[in-house]
Amino acid sequence: MTMTKNTPSHWVSRVSEITSEDIFIRGYPMRSLVGELPFSAISFLLVRGCLPTPREAKMMDVILSSILDYALQKSGTIAARSVVSVNPRMTAGLAAGMLGAGEYAVSPEDTGRFIADSIRAWKASGDPMEACAERLVADYRAGRRRIPGFGHQVFRGVDPRAEKLKAIAIKQGIWGEANEFYEAVHRAFQRAANKPDLVLNDVGMLAAIMTQMGFTPPEMTGLALMSTFPGLIAHISEELQSGVVNRIIPDTNSDCTQDHRDLARDMEDCGWA
Amino acid sequence: MTMTKNTPSHWVSRVSEITSEDIFIRGYPMRSLVGELPFSAISFLLVRGCLPTPREAKMMDVILSSILDYALQKSGTIAARSVVSVNPRMTAGLAAGMLGAGEYAVSPEDTGRFIADSIRAWKASGDPMEACAERLVADYRAGRRRIPGFGHQVFRGVDPRAEKLKAIAIKQGIWGEANEFYEAVHRAFQRAANKPDLVLNDVGMLAAIMTQMGFTPPEMTGLALMSTFPGLIAHISEELQSGVVNRIIPDTNSDCTQDHRDLARDMEDCGWA
Amino acid sequence: MTMTKNTPSHWVSRVSEITSEDIFIRGYPMRSLVGELPFSAISFLLVRGCLPTPREAKMMDVILSSILDYALQKSGTIAARSVVSVNPRMTAGLAAGMLGAGEYAVSPEDTGRFIADSIRAWKASGDPMEACAERLVADYRAGRRRIPGFGHQVFRGVDPRAEKLKAIAIKQGIWGEANEFYEAVHRAFQRAANKPDLVLNDVGMLAAIMTQMGFTPPEMTGLALMSTFPGLIAHISEELQSGVVNRIIPDTNSDCTQDHRDLARDMEDCGWA
Amino acid sequence: MTMTKNTPSHWVSRVSEITSEDIFIRGYPMRSLVGELPFSAISFLLVRGCLPTPREAKMMDVILSSILDYALQKSGTIAARSVVSVNPRMTAGLAAGMLGAGEYAVSPEDTGRFIADSIRAWKASGDPMEACAERLVADYRAGRRRIPGFGHQVFRGVDPRAEKLKAIAIKQGIWGEANEFYEAVHRAFQRAANKPDLVLNDVGMLAAIMTQMGFTPPEMTGLALMSTFPGLIAHISEELQSGVVNRIIPDTNSDCTQDHRDLARDMEDCGWA
Repeated sequence: MTMTKNTPSHWVSRVSEITSEDIFIRGYPMRSLVGELPFSAISFLLVRGCLPTPREAKMMDVILSSILDYALQKSGTIAARSVVSVNPRMTAGLAAGMLGAGEYAVSPEDTGRFIADSIRAWKASGDPMEACAERLVADYRAGRRRIPGFGHQVFRGVDPRAEKLKAIAIKQGIWGEANEFYEAVHRAFQRAANKPDLVLNDVGMLAAIMTQMGFTPPEMTGLALMSTFPGLIAHISEELQSGVVNRIIPDTNSDCTQDHRDLARDMEDCGWA
Repeated sequence: MTMTKNTPSHWVSRVSEITSEDIFIRGYPMRSLVGELPFSAISFLLVRGCLPTPREAKMMDVILSSILDYALQKSGTIAARSVVSVNPRMTAGLAAGMLGAGEYAVSPEDTGRFIADSIRAWKASGDPMEACAERLVADYRAGRRRIPGFGHQVFRGVDPRAEKLKAIAIKQGIWGEANEFYEAVHRAFQRAANKPDLVLNDVGMLAAIMTQMGFTPPEMTGLALMSTFPGLIAHISEELQSGVVNRIIPDTNSDCTQDHRDLARDMEDCGWA
Repeated sequence: MTMTKNTPSHWVSRVSEITSEDIFIRGYPMRSLVGELPFSAISFLLVRGCLPTPREAKMMDVILSSILDYALQKSGTIAARSVVSVNPRMTAGLAAGMLGAGEYAVSPEDTGRFIADSIRAWKASGDPMEACAERLVADYRAGRRRIPGFGHQVFRGVDPRAEKLKAIAIKQGIWGEANEFYEAVHRAFQRAANKPDLVLNDVGMLAAIMTQMGFTPPEMTGLALMSTFPGLIAHISEELQSGVVNRIIPDTNSDCTQDHRDLARDMEDCGWA
Repeated sequence: MTMTKNTPSHWVSRVSEITSEDIFIRGYPMRSLVGELPFSAISFLLVRGCLPTPREAKMMDVILSSILDYALQKSGTIAARSVVSVNPRMTAGLAAGMLGAGEYAVSPEDTGRFIADSIRAWKASGDPMEACAERLVADYRAGRRRIPGFGHQVFRGVDPRAEKLKAIAIKQGIWGEANEFYEAVHRAFQRAANKPDLVLNDVGMLAAIMTQMGFTPPEMTGLALMSTFPGLIAHISEELQSGVVNRIIPDTNSDCTQDHRDLARDMEDCGWA
């Protein structure tokens, strides 16, 4: 590889290369990949840039299977179906669905960023893990800042989905420092807040595992959306076949009443001649 | 202007030009435009490529004011608000809103295409307008194809919104051949279908006026979405300030029940070892 | 399952169901699925609504691996990277990427629709396959309409990617009537156009296989985009880490020159006072 | 207006109301608005919720005319044109264009947020404006945080576009406390950084004026995108008519080279049997 210049008008990419011979995906001829590695392993290769071990491939497959679908209680699904009810195109629905991930749903990104940043600070400090976790929690609580990935509306003590992810991560030899550190923060938080039953939830566990595997925070959002992708296709297809057009919010579920006003009088009051 | 080559990697554009002196908008220095022409007139200049007359500017302003908002009975608005309820960003909401125009809403494009194509066929035929309109209607009815822009759920005989647009178009000297031809088609359809009360609706009238003004069908969709743009900003802003997160469809308005199945048994039946 | 009413404000969905016990995915408890079936098999389940056989699961995995990435020669990738160069968010980039599929790229939908419609017509006719294919080709050629999925810029006689897909489909027992019919159309076209070297390309083969598997045309576009999804995540992540902001088209690759005009004079000419 | 409940499944909106009589836009019958107020004034009404004075309407018109277009040096335009080069739909292009606003372009939102937050802090402090501005600048510089809206690549001392906006704001009686405060911050920064020539740029001025007029930061992004909207329609229309499909980045402007690797060997090394 030679020297490159990455400027607003000169693009450098190492994802794939098109040659007269074949398309190379992260260095491997596409022809050799297809059918040889499962799609989830190829996905790891594309995003991380290197071949997964069989254990990483297994973990990747589980990560991609971890969100899937959430019926009509996911805002991105509502957006996607509303869009195709007037603009009946798969692409339009999928685009709207992608926009339905963020601060409040389908987004391990903030948790991933918290873990990555905290570990960086810990490493820089040279402190033991537990002590660092204690201080981090104290700082966050003093600053009234939320630590992401803890708590659940229903589960107490243990979130069974998080436990299952943890068991697989341990079995596949993925479990590591990022997980240990984040669990130390969790324990420190339980103590400081005196909430021994507060769970480390599934999104938190997922973010910690993906951090350990080397994914960046934005990539985590990408993988979370990829997990929801087949369900999104299914919802859009269902909507396209439903015969319903023009999704609306009915009067029973909305209030749009207004005080009616007089334009002529108000314009005069505002100085319009 | 010199010879140009428009290829997938060489881009030609005549919308604006950036020079060390100023930005030129369709040939005019931006500095000279701002404050001199109203925004709706500048919009005409940008889209049509030439300065509007004062009458065209007035018509353009009315066109941009013709849709505005439709409360919570517009699917694009539902999509936009759903998106920002989890991903609180104006840009994400606006993008979702743009996708909520199409076959079934906010889209004079199909009507515009019908009018443009029909007029082209009429001109090619050399027939008188009325005769051509008669035959066109007969062909459409024989092929069981819908002519867009006719009919309304409530209005009979006359659509008052369409009448108002027509009155302005006539007053501003915009009214012309495209309008006459489309009205001829409307009359022919009323006769052929024996529905003398079937109205030429507001979207039909709008499309005919925009055709007469020289806008292409896709531009008509663009202008329709531009008319809804301030309302969309307002809805997204309202949603962002609402304190509500994660818009969903409640159980009272949905049915997601499933017959529950046994994975182990079904996998065996399917041949999974 | 009881009677349902699908209206603009009442939503019916069978994709998943949320209960106090678990989330049910097409009838199966999510807990039982994860780790038991590979992600590509779960994707089949979500989109098709029923469990795949192991052979269908294998074929699905190959379908999802069939497009992957196309470096910087895919317009959707350019759109996605351009977007995040100013709005650095994974979701925004993915949404833009979804919109980069359509008539001219990443879209087996039109081919799928052609195959499905043609087979329906064939069945209705009661004619033998070859005769029906001949007549279809003759009709299309007479109407100067394009049959999608044939031809390639480089390959002659055989498209090796299509051949590989065919071999897998046969090996997995997927190959069937839709494939046979589409190949008959291909042969008929080669004869009628006297182009014995014209290939049945990879998109055509893919569409025929997905038709045979029971996917609808819009679902095919969804699966094609899903195949490009990990590559899209990789491109967006690469762009976010590139340090480049504000992607533009340089002067060397564009022509935006304009004839400069005089606003005051032109306004006067247009009747602005 | 009665008590309302705003929940994830119950929507409250005051933008418009549909009655059997008319659509009410912020309390005014739509029929009375069209043709009576210019589109930019109606836009103010929709976003701000109240009628503008004639002077506010004039300022609004100038704000909407302040960005317009930036040829092929705007990433959102590149994204929009790339999208429609494969998916030829106005809506898809406009959606992509909306996503091309953010941290690095077309976004007065951060500046607006800075001004609003700072003014709130100033009011809470009870300090004189100049002293507060001094301290704010000192804090930002100590924390190595950037104050948005200052500086320009070319302009020194004065940004003529900002000056023009200021002159109009003063003439229309809009100029007020937000503007005075932000200019005080600008002067304090010039002194503290010893950069007397550092300009207050056009985006900064625009944000200050919109703050003074009562727009929220996300609304500012909405209005900025609205200013670019007619240009975006023009670019998409131009692209649709260009005859070019499949926009790509040519080899001359990109580097996608890869070291080629051996899949069989690497899989063995990774433990794939």
